Amino acid sequence: MRPPAVILVHPQLAENIGMTARAMANFGLSELRLVAPRDGWPKKGAHQAASGATHVLTEAKLYPTVAEAVADLAYVLATSARARGQMKPVLGPGPALAEAAARAARGEACGVMFGPERVGLDNDAVALADSLVTFPVDPAFASLNLAQAVLLVAYEWRRASGEARLPFPETAAAPPASRGAVVSLLEGLEAALDAAGHYPPEKRPVMTRNMRDMILRMAPTEQDVRTLRGALRSLTRRRRTSPAPGEGQGEDPLSRMGEG
Amino acid sequence: MRPPAVILVHPQLAENIGMTARAMANFGLSELRLVAPRDGWPKKGAHQAASGATHVLTEAKLYPTVAEAVADLAYVLATSARARGQMKPVLGPGPALAEAAARAARGEACGVMFGPERVGLDNDAVALADSLVTFPVDPAFASLNLAQAVLLVAYEWRRASGEARLPFPETAAAPPASRGAVVSLLEGLEAALDAAGHYPPEKRPVMTRNMRDMILRMAPTEQDVRTLRGALRSLTRRRRTSPAPGEGQGEDPLSRMGEG
Repeated sequence: MRPPAVILVHPQLAENIGMTARAMANFGLSELRLVAPRDGWPKKGAHQAASGATHVLTEAKLYPTVAEAVADLAYVLATSARARGQMKPVLGPGPALAEAAARAARGEACGVMFGPERVGLDNDAVALADSLVTFPVDPAFASLNLAQAVLLVAYEWRRASGEARLPFPETAAAPPASRGAVVSLLEGLEAALDAAGHYPPEKRPVMTRNMRDMILRMAPTEQDVRTLRGALRSLTRRRRTSPAPGEGQGEDPLSRMGEG
Repeated sequence: MRPPAVILVHPQLAENIGMTARAMANFGLSELRLVAPRDGWPKKGAHQAASGATHVLTEAKLYPTVAEAVADLAYVLATSARARGQMKPVLGPGPALAEAAARAARGEACGVMFGPERVGLDNDAVALADSLVTFPVDPAFASLNLAQAVLLVAYEWRRASGEARLPFPETAAAPPASRGAVVSLLEGLEAALDAAGHYPPEKRPVMTRNMRDMILRMAPTEQDVRTLRGALRSLTRRRRTSPAPGEGQGEDPLSRMGEG
């Protein structure tokens, strides 16, 4: 499925063209069309801002007019920050790119136009589009950078085209500890707390339950149980004796559970 | 509902801090926290890149460590471009900010951490987070600019928090033309084409139907019908006579329909 072309109409700043290329490459777009960039093309500064997305810049095509830039396209979106008084559907980036993806899946060539920094597309350019795309910005601060607008379009394209897989999975969960291992740990902890005089007798049942709830809520793995056993062993050892360096073990309430 | 704080850990470039502020303001975030920016703070260049989002910069808070920057938060997301071998849930920006919005709705203070350009968050920072957020980038070009990553988080926050209204509606659709007005236009067109000898008789029925399908597909408004009537009148007038300047009307197949 062919991703939409990104059409920058009269872009002003080389840096924005470069950052546009980077944003496109981030989400799998590669076809950049430039309509009469203000300061000509190619232009110094664009490559640096592209931060490695040079293939997008070197393959960018240059057009003298908007009409020529969209001539081979069948579905064209025009980004706009304001109403136009033109009777076009107005879509958020999600629905707009979902429509583009549906068209692309049918083999239609699609494109998204972006106007010059600050002023946006003129009405004649908008008249060549099927729909307006606008962004759900805070009205109190609506000025979206050109490359940022391209990024959101590219991001929604990737979502709509079904390519939006995360780059890495969750760390394969280590096997959860058996409930028996967790209970054994809890019994060791409770024994240590008993030995330390921690529990007022009448509160022991509820305090024990609360602690068990808490430990089970963390869904400990076998490794977590070993980590907690080791920490508990060190704490209880310190409580009983303050061993001289290199000296012995003290009494260990966990040793009777055979943990090595 | 309090939006999440954006926490930039050891950011390097003033321009990225400024563009982060702008991206935040675009989608209604305002709380920026800076952990030991590489070149100090405040820093030249940030305000210009913020392009008006100066309130975010002037209210930014400075922290010496990540732990201090997240100390008052209850739910913390860590952005990452790579797996960490740390057992945290890994979420795309949509689900991650949906979870943050659910927490914020319960009154929990939330934050999203972003690491330094190029290297990202270190593992000690990640250890302070609840979940990892990563972006569904093209693995062939995965390097997302810092402010672009912030933009996607802010955009998804706005969606998740239910604030993602488009800044302007579709142009209020003009009333659609009555079917009678459209048929009247079509009859005028067909009469003009009859007069011009356009139809092979055996093909007239199918050609007429195709034209009617096409015109009805555009769902014309009353104004559209007037526009088409006017265009047709001019075309048919030119066909019949080539009036001298200031001269008369010629025969007009539409005039009998009383259109003024």
